[in-house]
Amino acid sequence: MSENNFLHQIIIDTDEFSLFNEFINAINNSQFKFFLIADKNTEKYCLPLIKKFVKNVENSDIIVLNNGESFKNINTCIDIWRWLLENGADRDSIVINLGGGVISDIGGFVASTIKRGIKFINIPTTLMSMVDASLGGKNGIDISNIKNQIGLYTNPYLVVVSPVFLKTLPERHIVSGFAEMLKYALIDNVYLWYEINKDKGIILNVVNKYIAQCIDIKMNIVSKDFYETGERKILNFGHTFGHAIESYYLTNNINSLLHGEALYAGIILESFLSYNICGLKKMDLNNICDLIFSLYKLPLINKEDFIEIIKLISFDKKNKNGAPRFSLISNIGESKYNIEVNDYELKRAVDFYINITK
Amino acid sequence: MSENNFLHQIIIDTDEFSLFNEFINAINNSQFKFFLIADKNTEKYCLPLIKKFVKNVENSDIIVLNNGESFKNINTCIDIWRWLLENGADRDSIVINLGGGVISDIGGFVASTIKRGIKFINIPTTLMSMVDASLGGKNGIDISNIKNQIGLYTNPYLVVVSPVFLKTLPERHIVSGFAEMLKYALIDNVYLWYEINKDKGIILNVVNKYIAQCIDIKMNIVSKDFYETGERKILNFGHTFGHAIESYYLTNNINSLLHGEALYAGIILESFLSYNICGLKKMDLNNICDLIFSLYKLPLINKEDFIEIIKLISFDKKNKNGAPRFSLISNIGESKYNIEVNDYELKRAVDFYINITK
Repeated sequence: MSENNFLHQIIIDTDEFSLFNEFINAINNSQFKFFLIADKNTEKYCLPLIKKFVKNVENSDIIVLNNGESFKNINTCIDIWRWLLENGADRDSIVINLGGGVISDIGGFVASTIKRGIKFINIPTTLMSMVDASLGGKNGIDISNIKNQIGLYTNPYLVVVSPVFLKTLPERHIVSGFAEMLKYALIDNVYLWYEINKDKGIILNVVNKYIAQCIDIKMNIVSKDFYETGERKILNFGHTFGHAIESYYLTNNINSLLHGEALYAGIILESFLSYNICGLKKMDLNNICDLIFSLYKLPLINKEDFIEIIKLISFDKKNKNGAPRFSLISNIGESKYNIEVNDYELKRAVDFYINITK
Repeated sequence: MSENNFLHQIIIDTDEFSLFNEFINAINNSQFKFFLIADKNTEKYCLPLIKKFVKNVENSDIIVLNNGESFKNINTCIDIWRWLLENGADRDSIVINLGGGVISDIGGFVASTIKRGIKFINIPTTLMSMVDASLGGKNGIDISNIKNQIGLYTNPYLVVVSPVFLKTLPERHIVSGFAEMLKYALIDNVYLWYEINKDKGIILNVVNKYIAQCIDIKMNIVSKDFYETGERKILNFGHTFGHAIESYYLTNNINSLLHGEALYAGIILESFLSYNICGLKKMDLNNICDLIFSLYKLPLINKEDFIEIIKLISFDKKNKNGAPRFSLISNIGESKYNIEVNDYELKRAVDFYINITK
């Protein structure tokens, strides 16, 4: 729709969306119509809150998608494009993405491609999305069960973060979202890491207080390298293995993993690579594993599965000319990117993972 | 992939692609791979010329699409995305779109959305595409038989215009492509209009000499308003009716019209609107009709068909809040945009068209 400014507006709002209401009132002199995308969960638990407090959303057209990553595909896009066209969306319309990362990923892609791009607002309803997926302008859908192969860099018009939605989330989703927060500490901020460790044991009750800090870390990195030609790649720490594990579980219909759950496994594997290749201290590696163990029971993955997972890594977008490249950490809070990792190192990381999870 | 600079590089090349070869040699120190998209026609008539003169294209992966607008849809995109992924396209790969507007529209969209955007080079093989479709960064696909509803603004990395391909084209396609050249004269350049009229009768033999001038006109307009919030809309002259007629013929499987053929009809209809609303002189309207008659036998469209065509206009992206808006001309070479046209005026234009074509 318009040029990317690399930093988009983010509101950290109250429980009653007073800032979002102000924003809408400010733009309300121009003519526009909202089209709201939800999933079955957010329709039930989050939409009533929005409708109660945000007047102009009441008359939106609403489409409700099936829950989950397995619907983040082109067929769902086609349904949404047709719905928008049939309901008269024009270039002044605004799409609202009410949901987690799946909704903002697909809704951002659909809005950015219909009529060559219309505005969209992300209202993240999961912790994961509040601190990561809704921010930074990446969107994408999966194809052939490989994650985010089709997508764009397009900034949202606005992101509205309200902690009110945390109350609607099951604990499993809080645990999952926290994986990204842990990642921010590991790649960028040793003080956040200390704080998190102080809260060990009660962390899931106090995640709220870290949200603004995590948003700051992410946006600071994104603003330096919007199109991910360099430094932004450090946000991929844990994700090269993490995405491949998530895709493998999705393809093989194994009990499905949430993104953050796969990311915990990825952080363990890539922390080991960091220890082995980049000089991360053994003690720090152990502390990272301990913290993750205190939060989440990691999935057991056997050697045969890992062979397939490593094959998937070669499809991953961090891959160049066949040699997988990783973003790793040399210390807590210090990261490097474009680190080539050979087969032998990958196998050692796999052995480490299998060993500590058995 | 990267920021849009609003003006992209255009090479008007020799028959042996010497400038394109220079360009490739200049970037060849970095590692990249070509993926070439053709259709059945360009595979047969144009690819051999490229292969003969451009060394590095020889080893490209090549996908060949079915011919025609009816394949410019999401299913074709899915085929191309999968082909790119299966053949190892990465963020350093370059897509080459070898064909007319359908190929650059779909290839530009696919390249801009895979892995959040990779580079693409347009090599237009039709006159239409040399002077219009391949230039200016718009791409798009059709959905539910409505044209270009899904798409983006993304500049090509390079456009290579070589008149050598004009020799491969049947006359029908030269006639069609000339419709856009005529449009440039009408909206922007009365001197081009005079020149064209001097060549009346032999125009199809000399189109070559106008190509560079038409490219200049288009890029000058595009550079002022890349995202089409204002002045770029004047490029839509003739297209509001033109697109609707083209969509209607496509949907109803009437003998199919080329884009430029529908555009001639659109220019007649919108020149009448221009005469009736914007003060275009009657004499100029007549001269426009005469010139078009000398080039092309306009399709007969009856009243019932026009009722459906006018319905389609309300789906068109130039439409805002229900009132269709047109880009019209107040004089030859002078244009206006966002002109609202009511039902009565539309019907008068339709009557005029039916009357002069019967």
